Amino acid sequence: MMHSRTIGVLGGGQLGRMIALAGIPLGFRFRFLDPSPEAPAGDVGDLIVGSFDDIGALEKFASGVDVVTYEFENVPVMAVECLASRLAVRPEATSLAGTQDRFVEKSTFDALGVPTTRYAAVHSRPEFDAAIERIGMPCVVKTRRNGYDGKGQGVIRSMADVDRVWNELGGRELLVEEFIRFDREVSIIGVRGADGACAFYPLAENVHERGILRCSRIPAAGADAPMQQHAERHARALMEKFGHIGVFTIEFFVKDARLVANEMAPRVHNSGHWTIEGAVTSQFENHVRAIAGLPLGSCEAISASAMVNIVGEWPGDAAIAEMLAMPGVHVHNYAKSPRAGRKIGHVTLVGCGEREMVRVLELCPHV
Amino acid sequence: MMHSRTIGVLGGGQLGRMIALAGIPLGFRFRFLDPSPEAPAGDVGDLIVGSFDDIGALEKFASGVDVVTYEFENVPVMAVECLASRLAVRPEATSLAGTQDRFVEKSTFDALGVPTTRYAAVHSRPEFDAAIERIGMPCVVKTRRNGYDGKGQGVIRSMADVDRVWNELGGRELLVEEFIRFDREVSIIGVRGADGACAFYPLAENVHERGILRCSRIPAAGADAPMQQHAERHARALMEKFGHIGVFTIEFFVKDARLVANEMAPRVHNSGHWTIEGAVTSQFENHVRAIAGLPLGSCEAISASAMVNIVGEWPGDAAIAEMLAMPGVHVHNYAKSPRAGRKIGHVTLVGCGEREMVRVLELCPHV
Repeated sequence: MMHSRTIGVLGGGQLGRMIALAGIPLGFRFRFLDPSPEAPAGDVGDLIVGSFDDIGALEKFASGVDVVTYEFENVPVMAVECLASRLAVRPEATSLAGTQDRFVEKSTFDALGVPTTRYAAVHSRPEFDAAIERIGMPCVVKTRRNGYDGKGQGVIRSMADVDRVWNELGGRELLVEEFIRFDREVSIIGVRGADGACAFYPLAENVHERGILRCSRIPAAGADAPMQQHAERHARALMEKFGHIGVFTIEFFVKDARLVANEMAPRVHNSGHWTIEGAVTSQFENHVRAIAGLPLGSCEAISASAMVNIVGEWPGDAAIAEMLAMPGVHVHNYAKSPRAGRKIGHVTLVGCGEREMVRVLELCPHV
Repeated sequence: MMHSRTIGVLGGGQLGRMIALAGIPLGFRFRFLDPSPEAPAGDVGDLIVGSFDDIGALEKFASGVDVVTYEFENVPVMAVECLASRLAVRPEATSLAGTQDRFVEKSTFDALGVPTTRYAAVHSRPEFDAAIERIGMPCVVKTRRNGYDGKGQGVIRSMADVDRVWNELGGRELLVEEFIRFDREVSIIGVRGADGACAFYPLAENVHERGILRCSRIPAAGADAPMQQHAERHARALMEKFGHIGVFTIEFFVKDARLVANEMAPRVHNSGHWTIEGAVTSQFENHVRAIAGLPLGSCEAISASAMVNIVGEWPGDAAIAEMLAMPGVHVHNYAKSPRAGRKIGHVTLVGCGEREMVRVLELCPHV
C-alpha cells in the first residue's frame, strides 16, 4: 500500500471538490491546479492558480504531492507526462491519450469490440462532404478534442445544415458520426484498483437537455442483468487496455435493448453523483481508494436513487427548503457563480418516490 | 431562511472537521478558532489560531462570519456572549451554561423530571466526607467543570480510596455521584431546528473503556419503542428548556430496562459518528441545517450500524486495508498525531455482521 498523504488534482472544479470531500476522511490532504482563483475545490485544499501548460505552475503543484490525479480529461497529455517523470500519476497518461481525441476513442471501441456508432474523421471540406454522404443524415459533427457538455457539436439533419455546421466547426479536426435515434441513454461507472481489481456501479439512466445532463436514475429502466454484464465487460476491457487506475465511465445509447458506446471519460462522472448518498461507497471515495492503492469499496446501491443537476441558476431559498424537507433528499452546492449552461450544484434523491422526483425536477433550474 | 455563507466554529477538532465536511456540500464555508495550529479542522476551512478567551482572536474569528457554533462545550460562556452581541450563535449560551457545570446539569435533569443518579455538590473536605456518607459507596467523584473522556474523575469503592481521590481532585468544585451498576449505556442524539422542529436518531448503545468510548452500535440491544420515546421526551424537554438550536446529546445508563441520565452535551457527539454513512442524514449535516435555518433531514438509520473509535495509535496499513476491504466499512482519519488516550479516527460498519464487528474491534487500537 502506498503511503500518500497529499493528493494533487489537476483541475479544481466540482469533481475535484467532491474527490477531496471523500478523501479527507481517509486522512489525505489535497492540492489543486486550476486556472481560476475561484475554483470551487479551493474550499477543501490548497489551490495553485495556473495554467496546465505552465511549467512553473506544474512545478509548484507537484512539490510535496504524493500522487497526482485529474478531474477532467482535457489536461494536456504532456503536462501529465512531465508530472509522471517525477511522481505517480493515476490514471496514467495512456488513459488521457485514449479519451481526449474522439477519433482515437472510437477506434479503441472498435479495436476492443465495444459496439459504437459509425464514424469518420474529417480534415477538410471535401472529406466532410464525403463523410456526410457515407454516414447519411441525420449525423452529428463533433470536434475531435476539447468538446464537453454539448459544446463543439452540431447536428446535420438535411443538406440545409451542412454549410452552417461547417462554418461553425470547420478548420478544426472533426469527427462525423451516425446519429442514433436511441431509446434511452445509460452510463456505467467502473473503478480499477492499483492491484487490477475492478468494481462497477449499477447502470444509470441519463437524460440530457441541450447537451447537458439533466438527471440520472438508478436503476436504469430496462437495464437487466445481461445489459449490466455487457457494460461491465466493455468497461473492464477499456480499463485493462489503458492500465487505468481510478474511476472510469462509459456513456452508452440504448437502442432496441442493445448498448452502443457514445463516449468514455477516464474520471469520476456527473452520472455518478448519486453514489455519494446512494451507494455503499461513492465514486469519489473509490477513486481515492484506487489511486492511493487501497482496497475498493462496494459499489452496491443502497436504494433506488436519482440525481438532478442544477444548471445556470441557483434555486430560491423556498425551493431549497422544500427539497431539503423531503426525506432522502440532499442538496450539493458547488459554490460557483451562476452562469447559463453552467453546472452549479445537484440534488440527490435516495429512496424517494416519483412525486418527489417530479417536484425536484420542477424546482431545479436547467438554463 | 437565513443566508449564512460562512459558519464559524469554536474549536477545530474532529467534530468541527466533520461538521465542515457535511456543510461544505450545502455551500457553506467554514472558519475555526482553536488554540492549536495543528487542529484537524484546518484542512477544511480557515483556522484562526488563538485562545477562546483572547478578545483579539475572537474579533478576528467573528469578522465575516454569518453564524457561530461550537464543537465542544468547554468554551467560556463569556466568549459566546461576546460573539452573540454581534452575530447569531447557535446553540446559544444558555445551552452551554446548562451543560458545562455538572451540578447545574444534574439540577436541570431533576427540574425537568429526567431520571438521574443521586448527587451532591462539594466545596470542602467535610462536605466531601458527608456526601460520601450520604450517597454511599461505591460512588463517583467528578470535577464540576472541564471533565471529558474520563478525565477529572475518580471512583470510591472503599474508605481506602477517599484520601487518594481527594488528593487528586480536592480543591476544585466537585460533584459526588451515586455509582450505578448499569446493564448498559445508551445515548440519544436529537436535533432542534431554528423553527423548533425536533428530530431524533435511534438510541445508540455505547461501550466505554477506561472512560473513553470504544464503540457504538445501532440498534441498541433492549432499546424498544417505549425506551426510545422516553429518551426523545427527555431530549426534547432539555432542548426546549435551553431554546437549543442544533444537535444535542444525552448519555444514559440503562438499569433494569429504565433510563438514568448520566450527562448531556449541547453538540454533535462521538456516539453519533455512525450517522455519516448509517443514517439518511448525518448528525453533522443536521447540525448545519439547524443552525443555518434549513429544514432538518430524516434521522432514520439505513441499516444496522456500528462505530469503533481508533484511540492512541493508528492501525497498520495491513489493518486499514483489511477493514476497507469489508463491504460497508468506512475509515475516518482525523489527521491528528497519535498520543495515548487521544481519539484519532473511527471506523463505521454499515450492514455488517458480528464477525466483521469483532474483527474491526481487534484491528482498532484503543490505548
